[in-house]
Amino acid sequence: MAWNTNLRWRLPLACLLLQVAMVVLFGVFVRYDPDADASWWEEKKRRNVSSDLENEFYYRYPSFQDVHVMVFVGFGFLMTFLQRYGFGAVGFNFLLAAFGIQWALLMQGWLHHLDSEGRHILLGIENLINADFCVASVCVAFGAVLGKVSPIQLLVMTLFQVTLFTVNEYILLNILEVKDAGGSMTIHTFGAYFGLTVTCILYRRNLEQSKQRQRSVYHSDLFAMIGTLFLWMYWPSFNSAVSFHGDAQHRAAINTYCSLAASVLTSVALSSALHKKGKLDMVHIQNATLAGGVGVGTAAEMMLMPYGALIVGFFCGSISTLGFLFLTPFLESRLRIQDTCGIHNLHGIPGILGGIVGAVTAAFASPDIYGQPGFPKDVRTSRAQGKFQVFGLLLSLAMALMGGIIVGLILRLPFWGQAADENCFEDEVYWEVPEENIAGHVSEDPTLKPPALLVPSGAPAFSAVLVS
Amino acid sequence: MAWNTNLRWRLPLACLLLQVAMVVLFGVFVRYDPDADASWWEEKKRRNVSSDLENEFYYRYPSFQDVHVMVFVGFGFLMTFLQRYGFGAVGFNFLLAAFGIQWALLMQGWLHHLDSEGRHILLGIENLINADFCVASVCVAFGAVLGKVSPIQLLVMTLFQVTLFTVNEYILLNILEVKDAGGSMTIHTFGAYFGLTVTCILYRRNLEQSKQRQRSVYHSDLFAMIGTLFLWMYWPSFNSAVSFHGDAQHRAAINTYCSLAASVLTSVALSSALHKKGKLDMVHIQNATLAGGVGVGTAAEMMLMPYGALIVGFFCGSISTLGFLFLTPFLESRLRIQDTCGIHNLHGIPGILGGIVGAVTAAFASPDIYGQPGFPKDVRTSRAQGKFQVFGLLLSLAMALMGGIIVGLILRLPFWGQAADENCFEDEVYWEVPEENIAGHVSEDPTLKPPALLVPSGAPAFSAVLVS
Amino acid sequence: MAWNTNLRWRLPLACLLLQVAMVVLFGVFVRYDPDADASWWEEKKRRNVSSDLENEFYYRYPSFQDVHVMVFVGFGFLMTFLQRYGFGAVGFNFLLAAFGIQWALLMQGWLHHLDSEGRHILLGIENLINADFCVASVCVAFGAVLGKVSPIQLLVMTLFQVTLFTVNEYILLNILEVKDAGGSMTIHTFGAYFGLTVTCILYRRNLEQSKQRQRSVYHSDLFAMIGTLFLWMYWPSFNSAVSFHGDAQHRAAINTYCSLAASVLTSVALSSALHKKGKLDMVHIQNATLAGGVGVGTAAEMMLMPYGALIVGFFCGSISTLGFLFLTPFLESRLRIQDTCGIHNLHGIPGILGGIVGAVTAAFASPDIYGQPGFPKDVRTSRAQGKFQVFGLLLSLAMALMGGIIVGLILRLPFWGQAADENCFEDEVYWEVPEENIAGHVSEDPTLKPPALLVPSGAPAFSAVLVS
Repeated sequence: MAWNTNLRWRLPLACLLLQVAMVVLFGVFVRYDPDADASWWEEKKRRNVSSDLENEFYYRYPSFQDVHVMVFVGFGFLMTFLQRYGFGAVGFNFLLAAFGIQWALLMQGWLHHLDSEGRHILLGIENLINADFCVASVCVAFGAVLGKVSPIQLLVMTLFQVTLFTVNEYILLNILEVKDAGGSMTIHTFGAYFGLTVTCILYRRNLEQSKQRQRSVYHSDLFAMIGTLFLWMYWPSFNSAVSFHGDAQHRAAINTYCSLAASVLTSVALSSALHKKGKLDMVHIQNATLAGGVGVGTAAEMMLMPYGALIVGFFCGSISTLGFLFLTPFLESRLRIQDTCGIHNLHGIPGILGGIVGAVTAAFASPDIYGQPGFPKDVRTSRAQGKFQVFGLLLSLAMALMGGIIVGLILRLPFWGQAADENCFEDEVYWEVPEENIAGHVSEDPTLKPPALLVPSGAPAFSAVLVS
Repeated sequence: MAWNTNLRWRLPLACLLLQVAMVVLFGVFVRYDPDADASWWEEKKRRNVSSDLENEFYYRYPSFQDVHVMVFVGFGFLMTFLQRYGFGAVGFNFLLAAFGIQWALLMQGWLHHLDSEGRHILLGIENLINADFCVASVCVAFGAVLGKVSPIQLLVMTLFQVTLFTVNEYILLNILEVKDAGGSMTIHTFGAYFGLTVTCILYRRNLEQSKQRQRSVYHSDLFAMIGTLFLWMYWPSFNSAVSFHGDAQHRAAINTYCSLAASVLTSVALSSALHKKGKLDMVHIQNATLAGGVGVGTAAEMMLMPYGALIVGFFCGSISTLGFLFLTPFLESRLRIQDTCGIHNLHGIPGILGGIVGAVTAAFASPDIYGQPGFPKDVRTSRAQGKFQVFGLLLSLAMALMGGIIVGLILRLPFWGQAADENCFEDEVYWEVPEENIAGHVSEDPTLKPPALLVPSGAPAFSAVLVS
Repeated sequence: MAWNTNLRWRLPLACLLLQVAMVVLFGVFVRYDPDADASWWEEKKRRNVSSDLENEFYYRYPSFQDVHVMVFVGFGFLMTFLQRYGFGAVGFNFLLAAFGIQWALLMQGWLHHLDSEGRHILLGIENLINADFCVASVCVAFGAVLGKVSPIQLLVMTLFQVTLFTVNEYILLNILEVKDAGGSMTIHTFGAYFGLTVTCILYRRNLEQSKQRQRSVYHSDLFAMIGTLFLWMYWPSFNSAVSFHGDAQHRAAINTYCSLAASVLTSVALSSALHKKGKLDMVHIQNATLAGGVGVGTAAEMMLMPYGALIVGFFCGSISTLGFLFLTPFLESRLRIQDTCGIHNLHGIPGILGGIVGAVTAAFASPDIYGQPGFPKDVRTSRAQGKFQVFGLLLSLAMALMGGIIVGLILRLPFWGQAADENCFEDEVYWEVPEENIAGHVSEDPTLKPPALLVPSGAPAFSAVLVS
């Protein structure tokens, strides 16, 4: 099938329509939170607050910025490992996230942040963090379909996934009253299985024609490490960003730090152990090292204890690496799930593990440990809380599968501008890619060295020479 | 004209003289702000402050670091898009900013931060942020002359531009009492038109001889995206860094976040719509997506409302993209303005728009909205404030043009070590560029693969082969 | 000597054993700090604290994240300048730091952070920062042996160096009661001379066989600039991260900012002055510009005054650049010290200078300047404090040399999987390096341009063609 990949009218229309809709909906619904409104001086008086520092801004802003970096640089660059899809990885991630955060502000606002009259969404720093969280789950799903979908498909997917994410999140956090500060269930499990279902529905029979481009080159692997490291370093902020003030935020950061450190060592161990010459594979270092952060997403703010976090990281790093080696090929050959970035190993399994860890930790919570009223819920025993956590996990999975099927079927429609199987993972389909120039320049200054030839990433001219 | 580009004595002398002057002037004039001085315990007593957190450091430090990243990594890497000017982009930006912040601390200190006796400049975290702001306007101007000037010219330009910037800023903020928290007028408009005037005066007739190097290659575009994303992500910190504590800072971050998100979608829309095959152009994604941040610079801390911010971003992203397509070629061919990075589209027009948005928002401010004494100024009506904002904008433009002409003429002098027209955009002029080695290595370990040939970015040896 | 570089069993075993040991030791010893524990509400009551903001988390978390970025992205990418060792630079730095922080949490915990009963280590945000600091000294030492050691050797070195670092730090800070907030002595001097001693013991006679790979290529120099800039920008956070709350933290950030700015200008000046054509050398820009941060490490929180900081930066930048030009070749040829990254110039000499600056500043401290009880120590005169600072410096040097000899000898054992002299600085030894594909793809869509040839970093296929 040779679809028309010229998006000249479709992409601009989609972007402009969505953006106009955002403007109108924001105009009707969105106002500032009291902490961000010019009337804050009244709020201060009312709450009897003396210091400006009590503004929520100062509690959350540093964490917000770290999460923001994870979504745009972290996920964006992590996906630049493909040799010819760096523009698409960073650029489409940028596009979908910029749209997604706006839509998430609305959806989450309607469900979580309405004012007392129920008419307006009140926008503050916590909304921005939650919108970034929601979009992170779309970035996860993007990893599964990377290189195989058009930007229009991504916008459509974002529209639906954000909607579903918010509904799922609402049921978990507000109805089931489940704990999930770092989003093992709502972000990672949901995002991963949603993306995997979509990519399964969008199965491409002849994708091996693009296989040569579905690999990295030396420098693309280094670009991807920028993404990996910013995700890894800022993950403690991710898991603590919306926790309660004080010890909960503090503890969430510490647990995540510990878990991530452990998953680096086990990823390296298994990567080397399973290569016949003991060599390390960049794919594992780029991805499995992060599994520890996913795995403590739910339990990070709980009294997991530092050694508990290390244990979680230990297993997540190991299992994730094993997944890349054994599960990804199996999923592709048997279940027709073509998972470009291996999100099943980084977000899928560790997400489920994280949900289970959270359930177990909650189930064994006791007044001895917490001492404090509030958690475990007064009206609910620890065991009951553990059960609800498991329901939450199962529900996230169900929502992801169901939503993924529907969205996948929508994305199969032939008019979204998707590329043919043999043109996947190729920036030239949707981007004006710079041609590499071969000819040198003649310097009039004899002190300059002869012209350097530029062949960084593609050179049609002499490809012809060599191929011929 | 073949100028002598060997800077062996001139550049070291310039750097050392400037740095010695800084040491002497700092020695005579600069002391610590009470919040940074060992006597702070007395200050705490005097102000009756009980918590160390009330130290200004804790209000501003996270924002400061974000702004710092924008100046050095953001602007530095944004300009690495040129295939053979990455060292110059990052390195000269580093040099001029490192000098500029010192000179800005002095200039701004003399005008804004003298102690009560008027003898000493008091240095605190807010000075550091303002110095970074001032230098940001030099980085903007650098974008216009990128690849065409020597590092000595950049130091001279920085010396003058920082001086003028500070005077302009003083007139606007202290005499006209204009609001400009994110610097749409003082930083972006001033910086852009200053730089454009300088590049116009430095017009290079035969620049097309360097045209082949005035383009990107695949990996240089990815490096530039690092700059773009760090600018984009941290822009909320930029626009809120020096706002009043509390709601103003909070609101400025939210407005900027919204505006930037909108400009991504409209940039993508217009980039695709105006390409005959609907393909996206990296230049637009790298630059026009940021126009929303420039456009809310003045109004960010005002009660612009989230939808107002979206509208600003909507138009800034669109106009900026249109500018790259239609205005930059026009400026170059008709007005002899050779604008390497297209700063007119990213900082010039959006800066003016931002000034106008600020004036309109201020003019329609009412006690209903703000409620609070202080803004709009007690003694001035909203309408009057709006007019002053417009005066401020016009004054910034006038100062930029006037200053740009003078500085441009100074930089035309023949002894600054500038490169010939045909050697522009080439790192080899001022940098020791690594030669690429072709020969492989012979491994004694037979398990190692045959030597990998290294041809990442330039290969004189086989350029000779191919060119011949 | 052709050692066996297949690490298939050795590396996994080392990683897993160390990680299991960490889990067990954490289980036995590590608990949460009261500020991170669920019982914090009791602590709040006890300390009569009303605001959650008084939790140590809010004082230190932004600085912690900046330091974290310096360790992983800063040091990691700074070392990617080698053309074929980017994976090793970033990846091994990642591995050793992830292990090192865990071990440092334990070691520093036992010596500094035991609870009142002496049974448990209490883990809070300050421990995380100190662990990162400790690992920074390992990253420094890694710079000396970069490209010449196996990951197992690095783990062994980390194990021993962290242990020694902690003991040295304990003697300096707790017994000698020396001031060293930014670690000029404990981190930089110790790390550098430890690493230099190790590399001296590991002297490789035939290293010139790998010389061609011990250079940069164009893009690897740009990757290294990412490391440089993140180190440079966040160094104010590094030097202020564990200072006392309030003015000390504030002042440390300001002094570091000033010192770093000055060292940029003098690095540029000397780099140009000492090149026969006045060209700048990326090595100096990547490294010597940072010397100012090292040089104010000890004195940053003292009343050094801004001009004092500029003077320190002035000399550190100069001396560091001179070191790269004259000292590094001398050390290699005469003292058989093969210092891959030139850490002697960036951390060694500036570290010693920093220790001396700290001693002098402390010696001239007076109640006029500080006013405040506490520093200079009540019981100790300023002069005595100055002397103790010097003792601290000398002790750090002695510990580094002694420790370096022992660890060097351990690392000379033949079974650690080190590479042969002619295979140093080559990622293929320990990494699965992507092969570059030459063949183009045939597009069925005639609107696509002919296939781009991919030759970013290595191309065995046509290396054969050209070499033959």
